[in-house]
Amino acid sequence: MRVISKPGEMQSVALALRNEGKKIAVVPTMGYLHEGHTSLIKKGRELADIVVTTLFVNPTQFGPNEDYEKYPRDFARDFELAEDAGTDFLFNPANEEMYSNGYKSIINISGITDRFEGESRPGHFDGVATIVAKLFNITKPHYAIFGQKDYQQTLVIKQLVNDLFFDISVVISPTIRESDGLAKSSRNVYLSDEERKRAVIIYTALSDGIHEVQKGESRRKILNAVLHNRIRTIPEIRIDYASSANADTLDEPDVFLPGERVIFMIIIF
Amino acid sequence: MRVISKPGEMQSVALALRNEGKKIAVVPTMGYLHEGHTSLIKKGRELADIVVTTLFVNPTQFGPNEDYEKYPRDFARDFELAEDAGTDFLFNPANEEMYSNGYKSIINISGITDRFEGESRPGHFDGVATIVAKLFNITKPHYAIFGQKDYQQTLVIKQLVNDLFFDISVVISPTIRESDGLAKSSRNVYLSDEERKRAVIIYTALSDGIHEVQKGESRRKILNAVLHNRIRTIPEIRIDYASSANADTLDEPDVFLPGERVIFMIIIF
Repeated sequence: MRVISKPGEMQSVALALRNEGKKIAVVPTMGYLHEGHTSLIKKGRELADIVVTTLFVNPTQFGPNEDYEKYPRDFARDFELAEDAGTDFLFNPANEEMYSNGYKSIINISGITDRFEGESRPGHFDGVATIVAKLFNITKPHYAIFGQKDYQQTLVIKQLVNDLFFDISVVISPTIRESDGLAKSSRNVYLSDEERKRAVIIYTALSDGIHEVQKGESRRKILNAVLHNRIRTIPEIRIDYASSANADTLDEPDVFLPGERVIFMIIIF
Repeated sequence: MRVISKPGEMQSVALALRNEGKKIAVVPTMGYLHEGHTSLIKKGRELADIVVTTLFVNPTQFGPNEDYEKYPRDFARDFELAEDAGTDFLFNPANEEMYSNGYKSIINISGITDRFEGESRPGHFDGVATIVAKLFNITKPHYAIFGQKDYQQTLVIKQLVNDLFFDISVVISPTIRESDGLAKSSRNVYLSDEERKRAVIIYTALSDGIHEVQKGESRRKILNAVLHNRIRTIPEIRIDYASSANADTLDEPDVFLPGERVIFMIIIF
């Protein structure tokens, strides 16, 4: 595995690989890798000749009061995990490389970003879309692999790719969970033992929601109430949102139609 | 010359040409071609193996009260001029191809767009940056050729390319003028005989400004007054702006420093 920190060098390498007829998969990450990330790297390994894992804690997707400074970082550990999972190139740029002095371009994806994570974190998805477009132009992938855990983000990326004509296949890989059902996340290290135990309620509530849909429930308010009622069994938890929506558009109809794909999304504190 | 109207087909052709080792130049236009455009096509011809001229009246760069509907269009004439100037591919997409149903992505370039044309035409440069990014991803050029006449636009494009890591050389080609000095422009057809005669005042005022700089004048207010005083000799004309600025940043210092490149920009009605 080769580590590259300069965008120009990464771009030249990617171009040379393309000219040799190689297929490239990119796995964009913010580092502090876990089995969710390594599953994405392995998926890239299956699809392409070359896997580029990017490792960049992107400042523009954090709000002013968010955890940018304390976001966990461990390059040595990431190096080992990325290499073991089958990464060929680890692209690890500095902030000032990705956002040169006087940068002025921001990509805004409207509509699907005005609710849920987008509403709770203003500007977050602008930051995501902008860094992903940069990484696409630097790594020149045929495939880009993202985790389903960040569901709204996967829709933002698909919209970006479609609207700006990136000829890249966006591949969404399943959420990897701990044995008790909590989704693996770099931010799980923030949790105290107590909070870690409580956090499983997310999985329980999601499972409740799926169960209701399978039983034939199609009224959105009822489905949302099922999530809320389950989460409220733990009084210490504050709900940011716990909602069902159309899985393709994030629209929120009163009643989901037969065959309509439903997504459940939960953020709690 | 081959005409292509589908983005997917244009992208496949560009990719195949790249895989053959060909260098591609793109000349983005809104059609109704004149010698300004054909000079850009000829410049592309000099630099690259393949010249793609794009022809698309981009709705998102027109304000609600602007001339989108009446913007002059003449495909047969454009075909002939583009071919004669040395175009290999004329990319001529429909609106619904470039902005698919439910498009949601807009690129915003801040800072350099908050004055002059950007101030007079809110959203104009967002539309420009967005369509140019789409065209770059579709035509996959090594070179992109733009005219210096739309000076602020050339800075927006350079910023876009730099910020989003498009590996494209942006080439700015000189303004082509009528024999009396008026810059060639598709919109000149809007002018009555009377207005057409008056319009030369733009060139006269720009020449006055350059002359003052060459004489050593460095105070911005004095330079701007030179432009205004010249234009005001024609009482029928309303000035939108007639200004000098730093040619790289569009900053407006009280006094230009020795060696600082100065640009003069004028919009009149």
